[in-house]
Amino acid sequence: MRIAKVIGRVWATRKLPDLEGLKLLILQPMEVTGSRPQGDFLVAADSQQAGPGELVYYVTSKEASFPFDRKFTALDAAVVGHIDRIDL
Amino acid sequence: MRIAKVIGRVWATRKLPDLEGLKLLILQPMEVTGSRPQGDFLVAADSQQAGPGELVYYVTSKEASFPFDRKFTALDAAVVGHIDRIDL
Amino acid sequence: MRIAKVIGRVWATRKLPDLEGLKLLILQPMEVTGSRPQGDFLVAADSQQAGPGELVYYVTSKEASFPFDRKFTALDAAVVGHIDRIDL
Amino acid sequence: MRIAKVIGRVWATRKLPDLEGLKLLILQPMEVTGSRPQGDFLVAADSQQAGPGELVYYVTSKEASFPFDRKFTALDAAVVGHIDRIDL
Amino acid sequence: MRIAKVIGRVWATRKLPDLEGLKLLILQPMEVTGSRPQGDFLVAADSQQAGPGELVYYVTSKEASFPFDRKFTALDAAVVGHIDRIDL
Repeated sequence: MRIAKVIGRVWATRKLPDLEGLKLLILQPMEVTGSRPQGDFLVAADSQQAGPGELVYYVTSKEASFPFDRKFTALDAAVVGHIDRIDL
Repeated sequence: MRIAKVIGRVWATRKLPDLEGLKLLILQPMEVTGSRPQGDFLVAADSQQAGPGELVYYVTSKEASFPFDRKFTALDAAVVGHIDRIDL
Repeated sequence: MRIAKVIGRVWATRKLPDLEGLKLLILQPMEVTGSRPQGDFLVAADSQQAGPGELVYYVTSKEASFPFDRKFTALDAAVVGHIDRIDL
Repeated sequence: MRIAKVIGRVWATRKLPDLEGLKLLILQPMEVTGSRPQGDFLVAADSQQAGPGELVYYVTSKEASFPFDRKFTALDAAVVGHIDRIDL
Repeated sequence: MRIAKVIGRVWATRKLPDLEGLKLLILQPMEVTGSRPQGDFLVAADSQQAGPGELVYYVTSKEASFPFDRKFTALDAAVVGHIDRIDL
């Protein structure tokens, strides 16, 4: 999993029917303290009612469809939790 | 998922029978505002009648075969939606 | 698999129910001798009671859910063993 | 999928029984016009009788075993089509 | 698949029961002629009795568990063949 900050949202009306109703977030991956950006942004489905500026962690690849009811959903990234604290 | 602009098309007559009839697009991944290129191009199957210059989002890996009827299609990237708006 | 040192822990109370009870570690991948950092940190589930400073190896992608009982767990990285010795 | 030129071949007599009879090509990924190398070479199984110098496209990850009859073949890259033309 | 040289071995007594008895090699990926290192080392399971200094090819991701009898083994890289010759 990776740590990211929610920095925006993508709106798409024309899309696969399987993706209807899913909220698409723009995530900026963060370095280990969660305070500075690191690497390229990505688009991820939200399973956690995450809002702008929140620190979350996300999964990629096939695992990204597991938070959602639909089988075979065409997703490759999903937010799966909010981060409360990072201990280093 | 990633954001990309459709920049071209690939034509291939000799290919796996499983891939017959699929339109293959050339995608240029874009940075977060959708206005500048970022990273290397790729070839993706089109499930959304996307045309040149359009901003889309796509999935990679096994998820890429889910938009299509055929099971086990040998695909690793697919356009799954058009982007209407990006809020940052 | 990759070699990493455990450098911290992530706490997340709001998350997918599937992830309840899993310990999330922060891993710093290491170069081949196991003595210097190499590459970016990641968050991985712990199947091996690994503690801070320990040298471990981990798997990524779908394989990361195999150490755990729950099927379809939304995980993409997991510690699967402690490293005793590296012979070069 | 990615675009590549066939630049060589790998011979391996001692290997997994599942891989017997598969032709292994060395592919050089190409930039978008198909005329200049871009990125690192890889080894891919051939499902398309591709020869040296030919421009092809290939899939990676689990999708790479789909062109072949055997289930569970330990492959992570396969040529799936010849490229006739690239429109930009 | 990628080409690599076997450069060492990892010993791990505390690990997932699924991984018992698997030999873990340290691989150094090589450039296309097989004579110079290219990229970062990784740890892979051995299905081919490969020894130090030998040139092999390996698969990554889910494919890496296919050479082994156990289903769901938590592996993401495996040596699947020895390389006899590379033709360029």
